[in-house]
Amino acid sequence: MRISARNSIAGKVIGIRHSANTAHVDISIVGTILTAEVTNETVEELDLKIGDKVYAVVKPNDIMLGID
Amino acid sequence: MRISARNSIAGKVIGIRHSANTAHVDISIVGTILTAEVTNETVEELDLKIGDKVYAVVKPNDIMLGID
Amino acid sequence: MRISARNSIAGKVIGIRHSANTAHVDISIVGTILTAEVTNETVEELDLKIGDKVYAVVKPNDIMLGID
Amino acid sequence: MRISARNSIAGKVIGIRHSANTAHVDISIVGTILTAEVTNETVEELDLKIGDKVYAVVKPNDIMLGID
Amino acid sequence: MRISARNSIAGKVIGIRHSANTAHVDISIVGTILTAEVTNETVEELDLKIGDKVYAVVKPNDIMLGID
Amino acid sequence: MRISARNSIAGKVIGIRHSANTAHVDISIVGTILTAEVTNETVEELDLKIGDKVYAVVKPNDIMLGID
Repeated sequence: MRISARNSIAGKVIGIRHSANTAHVDISIVGTILTAEVTNETVEELDLKIGDKVYAVVKPNDIMLGID
Repeated sequence: MRISARNSIAGKVIGIRHSANTAHVDISIVGTILTAEVTNETVEELDLKIGDKVYAVVKPNDIMLGID
Repeated sequence: MRISARNSIAGKVIGIRHSANTAHVDISIVGTILTAEVTNETVEELDLKIGDKVYAVVKPNDIMLGID
Repeated sequence: MRISARNSIAGKVIGIRHSANTAHVDISIVGTILTAEVTNETVEELDLKIGDKVYAVVKPNDIMLGID
Repeated sequence: MRISARNSIAGKVIGIRHSANTAHVDISIVGTILTAEVTNETVEELDLKIGDKVYAVVKPNDIMLGID
Repeated sequence: MRISARNSIAGKVIGIRHSANTAHVDISIVGTILTAEVTNETVEELDLKIGDKVYAVVKPNDIMLGID
């Protein structure tokens, strides 16, 4: 399935921590680490492994803004 | 107010488009553009302007993963 | 970009209502109408038109459950 | 409590997988399976069981659109 | 439709601001004002007016925590 | 990092239940209990303990409205 690639940013998988139903996937994006929570089935279906290139896709209304 | 800075990535404001209640704020993060949808009041309260440094804060469960 | 197709359901576009930054897209799924709010750019990028087949993709943690 | 029934679609519970705090509830909607993540307390309060009719309720801004 | 009333807090409607597709509804909860963004159809279906008692319902994974 | 304090409401931590990756934090807000799901790292970073004052921060588009 193809979705709008608009609000996505590429990074590299540097960690995957499974729990009962979901997994936390750490993504390194130019030195900043974002963690995504996805289902274990998604990790399996996308065959995600450490070192893989992956896109973090976020809807605009799920982004909060902060300043220093 | 201070929140966990954990799942946030820094970028620069390159566009602000207001609508009746919300604004779309385009953020350039090392060449990738993410758009955040926030209330007009948030833009005002954080005094956001083109060129400002800003953090895009996202909860892990709001990130979807994609691959090529 | 490819994402996990796991939590998605197919339907037909039966309405598109643009506002300043976002559009409401009505999707008919076996007689039930779901409305998605996406950016105007997404409607344009996916070239969505009335009658098109489309998938509504939802993260598990964004689904609330109700009963009669 | 009554909420807007607008953005909801009916289905049948076909699986419930508890973890420490949350449960994944699989819902069959005309042959398509959607998984909802809700708290264990919600499963208990709504007394959800396999075979029950349930509504998947989703806010428009939590729906992403994909195409083939 | 009945949903889990678990993660909801009661307040009074003190403002409704419509835009093309959605409305911002201000809710006073013991002196604190929360703003909800819902579709115009939801405002109409629940027949919301200034002064009405209303519940703000939020999924646990949509709450971020902050400290002073 | 500073964020807009606009859509936040203060309460007191009355419970913290960890699971593998996330924690459920119960917050008492004038007698109503809201549960937030945050990462274990957030609980640690904000050094949250029973009795602490905390703010529940919610984006307007993540609030659903219900009535009696």
